[in-house]
Amino acid sequence: MFLGLETEYKKFNNQFSEFFEKYNSVRKKYIPAILWQSMTYSFDSGGKRFRPFLSYLIAETLGVDSKKIMSVALAVEMIHTYSLIHDDLPCMDNDDFRRGQPTNHKKFGEDIALLAGDALQAEAFWCLAHDEFNSANQKISVIQIFSNLIGSAGMVAGQVLDMKSTPQITLQELENIHHKKTAELISFAVLGAALFSNATESQMTFFKIFSKNLGLAFQIKDDLLDGLDGAQDHKSYLKILGLEKTKEKIIQHSKSAEKALAETSLNTVALQKIIKFNLTRDK
Amino acid sequence: MFLGLETEYKKFNNQFSEFFEKYNSVRKKYIPAILWQSMTYSFDSGGKRFRPFLSYLIAETLGVDSKKIMSVALAVEMIHTYSLIHDDLPCMDNDDFRRGQPTNHKKFGEDIALLAGDALQAEAFWCLAHDEFNSANQKISVIQIFSNLIGSAGMVAGQVLDMKSTPQITLQELENIHHKKTAELISFAVLGAALFSNATESQMTFFKIFSKNLGLAFQIKDDLLDGLDGAQDHKSYLKILGLEKTKEKIIQHSKSAEKALAETSLNTVALQKIIKFNLTRDK
Repeated sequence: MFLGLETEYKKFNNQFSEFFEKYNSVRKKYIPAILWQSMTYSFDSGGKRFRPFLSYLIAETLGVDSKKIMSVALAVEMIHTYSLIHDDLPCMDNDDFRRGQPTNHKKFGEDIALLAGDALQAEAFWCLAHDEFNSANQKISVIQIFSNLIGSAGMVAGQVLDMKSTPQITLQELENIHHKKTAELISFAVLGAALFSNATESQMTFFKIFSKNLGLAFQIKDDLLDGLDGAQDHKSYLKILGLEKTKEKIIQHSKSAEKALAETSLNTVALQKIIKFNLTRDK
Repeated sequence: MFLGLETEYKKFNNQFSEFFEKYNSVRKKYIPAILWQSMTYSFDSGGKRFRPFLSYLIAETLGVDSKKIMSVALAVEMIHTYSLIHDDLPCMDNDDFRRGQPTNHKKFGEDIALLAGDALQAEAFWCLAHDEFNSANQKISVIQIFSNLIGSAGMVAGQVLDMKSTPQITLQELENIHHKKTAELISFAVLGAALFSNATESQMTFFKIFSKNLGLAFQIKDDLLDGLDGAQDHKSYLKILGLEKTKEKIIQHSKSAEKALAETSLNTVALQKIIKFNLTRDK
């Protein structure tokens, strides 16, 4: 799936699954069976784990053992999962299927789906607070950034602006929605991992620019693929800019992301491949 | 409202409002207006702030400046508010009114109400992580307890068990639901504040017993008042035990709470009044 990163992805996936199993062995026994099933149904539903893989590559890039960033990787995927479960609910996008499977509320009922999302959010913080490989100071820094990027000033804000947007939406408004709704969580996957990997302040500055632009390129690519797939709506670059300029936007953000990487003075070959993966993916 | 604690309550309320204003001045500008309105509509809707007041009294009892525990007080009230918003949704209890006012989703729509609840959960963690009066070690300890008590092993678990309970529910199952759904958050109001007030390990042990029993007495009293008000359902002590034995249960838990307080060797007059407040309240 991630061209040229097959070895890294396999290694990541093994470590991530191992870490999740370890988490299971600690937490599962305290959680009601039906709630656990609902939480893991969506967590395990075959997503490509793009965000946690990104955290992994940041640790690799900074030359740090990836166990240092596994709590960030798991927390990010839990938040991503909770946002999809709540997004699919009838009062939001009202989707019956995701990745070819019934959505969480179709399988478990709306009440359990709502609560599974709520629980996954709390579990993400549980994972970060219980991380065993970083100091309390580092963990507090990461939780500060996390609670900001996924909450009312970040991801949730993006959802609200999305729900309330009209067909008269401007390009700037759309970019703001994309930034908050998608790029903020991708930013956290990068910045949380960078903090736990002891990145310098200057590296953090460039990773911020990198992750923001990668996040936007990722979301605009999603827009493009949805549009080509016939699912176009008014909250779409395709609708506002047309096909050619949308493609240009993706390339433009990808270039900005690449430029920021170059300025870190690190070996960023793997992260550059992630930018390329997004440029060429067809789903 | 809190008999014999009028002075303390007034002092608490001023400090709590001041702290909330300070929080507002930092966060409000980053949050979309409609989301902020929805969050504060329920937060400010005239609840008695029982849980944050309890945190305040713990600091007083331990002789610590109450600014040390204000982040716990605010976080607890935010979680309580989010749980009520989600609880009232059509897919849960489907309530149109709370405290005489339209419920959040009746006022703002289901989508915004859902997101306001999600946002309040993240904000609670934001408050704890940004606390300025405690060390990173203390904050991590508190966030560890918090994420456990409000999540899939605590409050959310209680909600799930409640939704899935049947008329054949046993007393033990009911007690478990009450413990998780209500007592866990009340426990956090006590234990989070105690940790930030540098309670000793032995004091923590007794505060655990105190808060668990107070939480159960509080929830059974709610059951009793709802039942006398005609809103009785199968998930009720009144239904399972009848009036007299329900009253006995409240007294029994209140006594256990009082006994635990006595063993702390602290001046716990104010906390004893809280137990009495619950015994005598009629709403």
